[in-house]
Amino acid sequence: MNDVSGNWFAQAVARLTEPQHQRVWSVIVTVFGDLAQGPGDRLSGGALNRIIGPIGIRPEAIRVALHRLRKDGWLQSERNGRESRHFLTEFGRRQSAAVTPRIYTRRARIADDWYVLIAGEASGMRTLDDLLLAENFISVSRTVAIGPGRVPGECDDLLVFRADPVKVPEWFRERLFPPELERACRTLLEDARAVEALLSTAPAPGPLEVAVLRTLVVHRWRRVVLRHPDLPPQYLPPDWPGEACRDAVFRLLDRLPRPSLAELEAV
Amino acid sequence: MNDVSGNWFAQAVARLTEPQHQRVWSVIVTVFGDLAQGPGDRLSGGALNRIIGPIGIRPEAIRVALHRLRKDGWLQSERNGRESRHFLTEFGRRQSAAVTPRIYTRRARIADDWYVLIAGEASGMRTLDDLLLAENFISVSRTVAIGPGRVPGECDDLLVFRADPVKVPEWFRERLFPPELERACRTLLEDARAVEALLSTAPAPGPLEVAVLRTLVVHRWRRVVLRHPDLPPQYLPPDWPGEACRDAVFRLLDRLPRPSLAELEAV
Repeated sequence: MNDVSGNWFAQAVARLTEPQHQRVWSVIVTVFGDLAQGPGDRLSGGALNRIIGPIGIRPEAIRVALHRLRKDGWLQSERNGRESRHFLTEFGRRQSAAVTPRIYTRRARIADDWYVLIAGEASGMRTLDDLLLAENFISVSRTVAIGPGRVPGECDDLLVFRADPVKVPEWFRERLFPPELERACRTLLEDARAVEALLSTAPAPGPLEVAVLRTLVVHRWRRVVLRHPDLPPQYLPPDWPGEACRDAVFRLLDRLPRPSLAELEAV
Repeated sequence: MNDVSGNWFAQAVARLTEPQHQRVWSVIVTVFGDLAQGPGDRLSGGALNRIIGPIGIRPEAIRVALHRLRKDGWLQSERNGRESRHFLTEFGRRQSAAVTPRIYTRRARIADDWYVLIAGEASGMRTLDDLLLAENFISVSRTVAIGPGRVPGECDDLLVFRADPVKVPEWFRERLFPPELERACRTLLEDARAVEALLSTAPAPGPLEVAVLRTLVVHRWRRVVLRHPDLPPQYLPPDWPGEACRDAVFRLLDRLPRPSLAELEAV
């Protein structure tokens, strides 16, 4: 990259990087989910370093995170001569595929049916805790959760209602949309717009630059959009910037079409 | 009353009396609700003694209960020569009228709309407690209640859903229909049927006998039917005897048409 390109690119990376929230293993999950989620997809150690190195992540931190992801069953690695090549396991691909539709949809997908699940004071707490771990549910309080879509099978000791919200009190709205989520959403909105502006006057970015920027944007968007399932408007605070943020994210991603793995390895 | 009549009547009273559950003030509330709920209705101390004396309630206990009911604003008393006459206050009539439809309906009135009301761990608990006192709601747990009919006005700090039951777990069914309620319901069913059988071979009962028996039946039925609002079938335990009990109660009451106050005073 020449100096001019380097200048806009450095600005864009600086704008999109949030040093305080970078769990390296989580960034790597984002990279594979975005660029190498297919069954035969592989990413060399070199390419991975080139994609997340510019974000300020050092090779040692990458090695530690890869070790952890292998231990947790997300990734496998194979040697190919002097180079390691990494790929998602079957489990890792399932996990990745489970959230992909929610991350990449251009419109909020609000479930038609919602359920409220209630544990008793002495019964059902364990079931509720298990469901909150396994399903896309929202914790309301120690004994209550709400969830979209369908009633889970394993909940015979819960009181379950099909539920339409009539009143959403301030305390629940704040639980759903706490200040740090609002901050994450607003800053991503501003940063995505700023980087879109930078891109509009920059030379066409190369595949690696695209991969770096996509990773940064998708990683931040994941943390906003996966926080909880898309909610009907009754739950949203006034002026919630979620959909504006989604629009800005996808306008930016449209300018940064996903490069092929071959392009990334050839850099 | 002659010996033959006395015999069946004593048996009927014994069958319908539950000495362990007789709160005298509550029996008096039943008497006024059943026999003297109208705006101008008055019941002399003598008539009251004659109606609830045969149940085993002594005049001193009646005096104490009347004192309490006056203190609580339910009743007023006036002197008429040597005799006291008692009547429901405006407040007492309102309280009485509020439950009359539920006590005297011959068919369960199941609300079409139900709500679940949820307090947060730090907010809304007070509101929920107030609602449970004031409204016809059912406590599910420390932070959750369900209620029929309409959303109450004063609940801005509660999370409220319009709610259709999908799963009713055993712990909630047991909370709704605990063993003592089932026992109260089954024994009332049996006792009402037994007294109906006694009546079918007895001489026509006089107004006072009718008043005594009505009081006993209605008082026990109140404790079953007012326990909670009529619930949709999903909540009921299998073989719940509630509707059979209601039928037996109304078959019996149909044999014991409400006497007029004039008849009761004239005895």
